[in-house]
Amino acid sequence: MSTFVKNAWYVAAWSKDVGRELLPRTILGEQILLYRREDGTPVALVDRCPHKLAPLSVGRLKGDFVECGYHGMTFDCSGACVRVPGQQSIPRSAHIRSYPLVERYNAVWIWMGVPELAEATPIVDVPHYEDAGWGVVDGQYLHFKTNYLNITDNLVDPAHTSYVHRNTIGNEAGEDVGVQVEQGASHVLAYRWIKDAPPVALVARMGQFTGNVDRWQYYYLYLPSVSCVDFGSIAAGVEPTEENKDKGIRSFSFNFLTPETESTTHYFWLHVRNYHPADAQASDDVAHLMNLTFKEDADLLELVQIEQERTGVREYTGLAIDNAPVRIRRMIEGLRAQEQPEQAGQTAAARRASQPAFSS
Amino acid sequence: MSTFVKNAWYVAAWSKDVGRELLPRTILGEQILLYRREDGTPVALVDRCPHKLAPLSVGRLKGDFVECGYHGMTFDCSGACVRVPGQQSIPRSAHIRSYPLVERYNAVWIWMGVPELAEATPIVDVPHYEDAGWGVVDGQYLHFKTNYLNITDNLVDPAHTSYVHRNTIGNEAGEDVGVQVEQGASHVLAYRWIKDAPPVALVARMGQFTGNVDRWQYYYLYLPSVSCVDFGSIAAGVEPTEENKDKGIRSFSFNFLTPETESTTHYFWLHVRNYHPADAQASDDVAHLMNLTFKEDADLLELVQIEQERTGVREYTGLAIDNAPVRIRRMIEGLRAQEQPEQAGQTAAARRASQPAFSS
Amino acid sequence: MSTFVKNAWYVAAWSKDVGRELLPRTILGEQILLYRREDGTPVALVDRCPHKLAPLSVGRLKGDFVECGYHGMTFDCSGACVRVPGQQSIPRSAHIRSYPLVERYNAVWIWMGVPELAEATPIVDVPHYEDAGWGVVDGQYLHFKTNYLNITDNLVDPAHTSYVHRNTIGNEAGEDVGVQVEQGASHVLAYRWIKDAPPVALVARMGQFTGNVDRWQYYYLYLPSVSCVDFGSIAAGVEPTEENKDKGIRSFSFNFLTPETESTTHYFWLHVRNYHPADAQASDDVAHLMNLTFKEDADLLELVQIEQERTGVREYTGLAIDNAPVRIRRMIEGLRAQEQPEQAGQTAAARRASQPAFSS
Repeated sequence: MSTFVKNAWYVAAWSKDVGRELLPRTILGEQILLYRREDGTPVALVDRCPHKLAPLSVGRLKGDFVECGYHGMTFDCSGACVRVPGQQSIPRSAHIRSYPLVERYNAVWIWMGVPELAEATPIVDVPHYEDAGWGVVDGQYLHFKTNYLNITDNLVDPAHTSYVHRNTIGNEAGEDVGVQVEQGASHVLAYRWIKDAPPVALVARMGQFTGNVDRWQYYYLYLPSVSCVDFGSIAAGVEPTEENKDKGIRSFSFNFLTPETESTTHYFWLHVRNYHPADAQASDDVAHLMNLTFKEDADLLELVQIEQERTGVREYTGLAIDNAPVRIRRMIEGLRAQEQPEQAGQTAAARRASQPAFSS
Repeated sequence: MSTFVKNAWYVAAWSKDVGRELLPRTILGEQILLYRREDGTPVALVDRCPHKLAPLSVGRLKGDFVECGYHGMTFDCSGACVRVPGQQSIPRSAHIRSYPLVERYNAVWIWMGVPELAEATPIVDVPHYEDAGWGVVDGQYLHFKTNYLNITDNLVDPAHTSYVHRNTIGNEAGEDVGVQVEQGASHVLAYRWIKDAPPVALVARMGQFTGNVDRWQYYYLYLPSVSCVDFGSIAAGVEPTEENKDKGIRSFSFNFLTPETESTTHYFWLHVRNYHPADAQASDDVAHLMNLTFKEDADLLELVQIEQERTGVREYTGLAIDNAPVRIRRMIEGLRAQEQPEQAGQTAAARRASQPAFSS
Repeated sequence: MSTFVKNAWYVAAWSKDVGRELLPRTILGEQILLYRREDGTPVALVDRCPHKLAPLSVGRLKGDFVECGYHGMTFDCSGACVRVPGQQSIPRSAHIRSYPLVERYNAVWIWMGVPELAEATPIVDVPHYEDAGWGVVDGQYLHFKTNYLNITDNLVDPAHTSYVHRNTIGNEAGEDVGVQVEQGASHVLAYRWIKDAPPVALVARMGQFTGNVDRWQYYYLYLPSVSCVDFGSIAAGVEPTEENKDKGIRSFSFNFLTPETESTTHYFWLHVRNYHPADAQASDDVAHLMNLTFKEDADLLELVQIEQERTGVREYTGLAIDNAPVRIRRMIEGLRAQEQPEQAGQTAAARRASQPAFSS
């Protein structure tokens, strides 16, 4: 039973990884082939020759076209077959699907849904990307062995940081601090302030704080699976205007989740910060710390996925902190019901059936 | 289709392996978490947080309680939730199952069935355990990739030793010696005497025999899956009283089988002997030899499991030596019918259906 | 759904690999045990004791008989049980299937179908095998992770050589040369001539050609899965009589495909040539080159198998070059319909259903 939303922009790859080599990648369960035309424009086709189903990625580029490595059938960038060696006519069925692409934030974004809807749909805005006074770490990638909605759960859930990330970005000061949740037409925001607490390790190193700080975590989830975490610290008691926040230690952590299969997810991330913007060492430190942090999520959520598959259940007990995750899952179901009315209905029924009243 | 009997004591772990580290272990297909309270009492809980299904074994101990590594939900030794960080009320469904435990013979025994039946059920008696004049090897473990009933088959079947254990505990003298079988309310006994034969390698080394010996093998199987093999040798012709047996070379080999899944089994074993009781080298020799021997069983029974799964059949041809194994399987089906009337009936029907009259 | 034809001779093993060691091998999805009697005659039995399903291949030979390694049940070369240790009578069901074998071309051929049909069915003729003036490379084996019909597709399809074998036996000269197809009662022939083209690398080394050559490829497929490729080169313009061909550079490449499972295939091959017949280095060169070439097929067809299993489809678009492959698949379906009328009908229906009009 699919949980994928098709009509959305997903990061297919970082720009640096798409070139004149044929790059195969599974996206929303489909085999995709990525490469660039000679003029640099990226191309995405189904990675499967319609003749005998050989992956086109083991073929080769001929100019802007792809030649199958089995019998030489050749496809242009729209997926139309332009040559069948040994015969003059091209069979009518000899074409493969191509996908709309957009390049932004050093990433190649792909549209897996109805092509006509692509153009009118904006890609998320990353504030201060390449602004003066702000440093960027991008091009980062992790592979998660879990369904993408287990990750979106986490990304609107500040509460887990005190436990999963005890050794990296979290500490125990925030354990009992509640979360406020707001819902928009196509996003959910969960946020909280942890006031008058010691700075976490990174902030203690990067900031100039002499005493306690007020720490904020604003977790935005733009449907279906773009996460922006706006987090930072200002001296305890300072008024939390945007301007004051920009004068503190502030970061925007963007996580672009692209479902690979129902049980695995491509996790692309970038990070924008207002401290030591041009300092390569600081960038390396951010990359190192964030990758450690996200690896902690990946390790835990892989175990959660295994238990979900073993039991056929997603959770037995709801908590107050599930407010934002539950909203996201409901909104995702709504999107899926629009795309595939029948399947989404089955999903909801199956979900109810798989949640017994009694515990494990 | 399950073959598990739930209302029984199973070894969950050797005592030495349960401590203040969280120990996960799969038992009868369920995920179990083992640890000790600060006062040393062992605890067994379901290894799965009811919130998002994270394994509790990747959390941590806080005193006698277990804190989930995902959001900090905390459970006491009865499985009741005592804390949900960030909210005051504890959801009614926020509890997990705990299991009765008993510690005996340096092992932690677990009760996976109806808790009320645990206390009245005795744990098997191991004769001479820690008696003066008797040596013990315990704390031994092997992992078998086969259903536990394939192992109980072997453990009441002296006939296989001449073939499977030709290089360890068996020899060809007993190939054609028949087996006597007796059945009790909750055990089966298969036994045989191999009279006036050369001693096997181990006995030749350990005993003082100058000529042939009478060798006995008494294979007890206490349902569902505790095996005791009483075996030894006395000089050929000596009257086989218990007293005379104790003066010969005598061993009690206990094998405690704990089903892990339908196709894998935890194999705990200990060994009590009346020769060289305090000799560490003799103990090492026993451990080495028995582990070699049981590894021979494990290797063969893994292949049997593969063929059973491939064909969907357990056997095509019954032999006279199957008398005791067949009795055990019938008694196990009886126990299962008591526990789960409907399922056990299906098992019997399926078993009949899977045994065609004609051979492979 | 099976694609196997049972009433046919298949190579079970090279003669050199069958001896007094018990050799297990999966053939047409069945577990087979191969060995030789003391007089050298090869024997094939089901590799599974009818008692508890232990593989007989982990037992041992006793003269011409096989003794099970579990309880010593002993079987003669016809599969009849001749001994059950510990009991006098032999159960009526205690026998296993044996298979007709023939030894030819240094290979042991097995008959998996109705035994009565074996004798009247000839084994394919390999021309010039061990003739003076001709060199032989035999005893070669590769394991393909693909259904055998994907390989037969290739073996009547000269077109793929220009792409899959660009670095070994193919070049681009033949890309647009069409294929002629002829069909017999139990074979399909696809052939083509590539006229007046530079010799391929091997021929350039082995022949004495000073200019262009005429190159022929005759791909015979004898049902169900014996392939003979008659290929070679003569100086451009020479009349292509058999006699003239024998004076050029000529090879007969035989590939004996034995389905292992529905998704894997044993690939036995031998090669007969008219150049440097006694030259061991030339033989090594042929073996090396052909193994490289077939490995190219294996690598590609494994990917094709994966895509076929993922999509449940075999192809979306038919091409002119599929003429011979399609004929073979139809003839195979005809053979299967004779053997198992009901199943083969389902196969045909399923195949139609799995070929949507529209592309991937």
